[in-house]
Amino acid sequence: MSTFSFTLDATCRESWARAGTIQTPHGTIQTPIFMPVGTQASVKSVSPEELREAGAQIILANTYHLMLRPGSSLIAEFGGLHNFMHWDAPILTDSGGFQVFSLGHLRKLSEEGAAFKSHLDGSPHMLTPESVMRIEAELGADIVLPLDICAPYPSSARDAQEAMERTHRWAERALIAKEQHRPEQTLFGIVQGAFEPELRRQSARFIGNLPFAGLSIGGLSVGEPKAEMWDLLRYVTPELPEGKPRHLLGVGSPEDLVMGVSLGMDMFDCVLPTRVARHGGLFTHQGRVNIKASRFSTRQGPIEEGCDCYTCRNYSAAYVHHLARAEEQLYYRLGSIHNIRFMLRLAGEIRASIIAGTFPEFRDNFLVQYVPTSEKVREDQREKWKAARRYQ
Amino acid sequence: MSTFSFTLDATCRESWARAGTIQTPHGTIQTPIFMPVGTQASVKSVSPEELREAGAQIILANTYHLMLRPGSSLIAEFGGLHNFMHWDAPILTDSGGFQVFSLGHLRKLSEEGAAFKSHLDGSPHMLTPESVMRIEAELGADIVLPLDICAPYPSSARDAQEAMERTHRWAERALIAKEQHRPEQTLFGIVQGAFEPELRRQSARFIGNLPFAGLSIGGLSVGEPKAEMWDLLRYVTPELPEGKPRHLLGVGSPEDLVMGVSLGMDMFDCVLPTRVARHGGLFTHQGRVNIKASRFSTRQGPIEEGCDCYTCRNYSAAYVHHLARAEEQLYYRLGSIHNIRFMLRLAGEIRASIIAGTFPEFRDNFLVQYVPTSEKVREDQREKWKAARRYQ
Repeated sequence: MSTFSFTLDATCRESWARAGTIQTPHGTIQTPIFMPVGTQASVKSVSPEELREAGAQIILANTYHLMLRPGSSLIAEFGGLHNFMHWDAPILTDSGGFQVFSLGHLRKLSEEGAAFKSHLDGSPHMLTPESVMRIEAELGADIVLPLDICAPYPSSARDAQEAMERTHRWAERALIAKEQHRPEQTLFGIVQGAFEPELRRQSARFIGNLPFAGLSIGGLSVGEPKAEMWDLLRYVTPELPEGKPRHLLGVGSPEDLVMGVSLGMDMFDCVLPTRVARHGGLFTHQGRVNIKASRFSTRQGPIEEGCDCYTCRNYSAAYVHHLARAEEQLYYRLGSIHNIRFMLRLAGEIRASIIAGTFPEFRDNFLVQYVPTSEKVREDQREKWKAARRYQ
Repeated sequence: MSTFSFTLDATCRESWARAGTIQTPHGTIQTPIFMPVGTQASVKSVSPEELREAGAQIILANTYHLMLRPGSSLIAEFGGLHNFMHWDAPILTDSGGFQVFSLGHLRKLSEEGAAFKSHLDGSPHMLTPESVMRIEAELGADIVLPLDICAPYPSSARDAQEAMERTHRWAERALIAKEQHRPEQTLFGIVQGAFEPELRRQSARFIGNLPFAGLSIGGLSVGEPKAEMWDLLRYVTPELPEGKPRHLLGVGSPEDLVMGVSLGMDMFDCVLPTRVARHGGLFTHQGRVNIKASRFSTRQGPIEEGCDCYTCRNYSAAYVHHLARAEEQLYYRLGSIHNIRFMLRLAGEIRASIIAGTFPEFRDNFLVQYVPTSEKVREDQREKWKAARRYQ
């Protein structure tokens, strides 16, 4: 029944990078790919037409947020998310697990599933592997994820193992449940194992051997140092089946995209590009700049020379700076479009270099040029965001 | 030197309504017209391309806001407002007077001009009829307004007269100053006189006889009951020269557009359509609806059947409702586009009816159908907005 397929177009000889093509009912995705996140059925500040123009091939939407508001059954009445939000290209929905486990004392885990109280109105809800398949069937995305348990960082080895084993049992339940709802949807499996290399290997093998069409690597980028994330991928990737697409959940920044591809990942999603844009952080090949800095107040050229995004084609850096300082709504849009286009152009360049056989040079040149935001700055930002919006 | 012209295309036999065509260096404007307001060089939430698609022919920008941030000399370095904000159609800038007089204790009036402290950083500034002409020359709009004094509502007859007489003296100074800066800009005169019918008549005659290319009616819609505003226009309009366009400053709502045209006005500007949109108020031919109301949560159709705006063509009322409830940025854009398009479609329909000789029927049908927001509700909203953003 599935109209999903994945073809490897090229692989790198000196790294684990791959270029591939995914077919879905709503169109083709060329990997490696970055997926902008439309948490509440809207990629913040950006219209579907603008996403398309920026090169977006697939977006991610959050099951947790949508099941609470406006509700998955309402979205089903509108023919699913594609119709509801006026986006006719592929969509991936996550399982809601990550958000539920972030609720802390508002949720309670059992073998059956996760009971939680809505952050909006305190109403009680229950997510099970089965109910998540029903909800995601109502949302109608092309690719869906099963309920999993994301262990916090740090976790004890014992907690990590329990979370992983339950994730595995839930994965099997999800595979069965999915067939009862919309078999034409494509279900990816989620690899867990926290920060235990041996568990990560086990999970990759276990989930990789189940009949999932693709694999999402969960539980990373949850506060650990980046080096630790890359180390774990070095254990995970060799255990994954070659012929399935690999999605690194919740990652990331420009440098993460390059590193993740090098370590064998094909798909990436993160709110970071749009979130940092809203706070003034815009991507360039030299690193992230703060458009609110006074050095941009008189700059006639675009945010980055050579950028082909709508913002850079039509507006000076000085104008974008002015809008950001004045907190004009148009700024949030122009900044978000720039960062989304940056990620998608980068994904396209990575893909071209893999096909051309020059990915290792591309990667090294990019990483030499691009000055990443320091761990300290990232940590501070994370804390600020957490404080500002507890559950997003 | 001026490339400005105004031609009357048709006049109504039973009212004072007129249809006209204005030529400016940046293009043609067909009147009656509504001008969206781009306070800080951006019509809040809406891009220039979207304004164009919504039928905007001219926008208004605020001299007060732009002189303070980013500064008129910076905008001049970028070739003026058109280049700076990526809008190549006509622009009108106001004089900053209205905003300065709203500053209360932060400003001091003299015959020379108005001294004030910036609401942004407390820095001291001085606006004179001459400096305003220089600043507006730097901004480079097609149509510019001279510094005037907007008497508050209510005012004593004596205060009203003093404010009017000073406005007249300043008007003469502005006419001289303007020739020293950019003679190719078009200067409109501002009619004042507060709520004194005889003063309004005097001011209309005085300003109407000076060599201004158009007339803006100032000092109305400042808190008085609407009936009083319309009464005053009944005194003003017959005193105005036929051959110059007439601009009703800071007005208004859909019903104000219809009434204002009927009383001889050609041009309108107001933040109301975009401001009420941001608060959930969307225009329909039956009146303003609150898109956040639960009755929209399941509505499959558009906000208004038959509306040709981007929002109504592409999104259900339920989706717009969802975005508004979730406070998604895209909502502010979709709501603003709908209301701007509503105003511009209405202006176009009014114009067509004037040309067809059916304006009185059009007006009466519209006013019968359209339930205006009550004075009480409007007053409450005004107070809320004032509290929220003191100087905008």
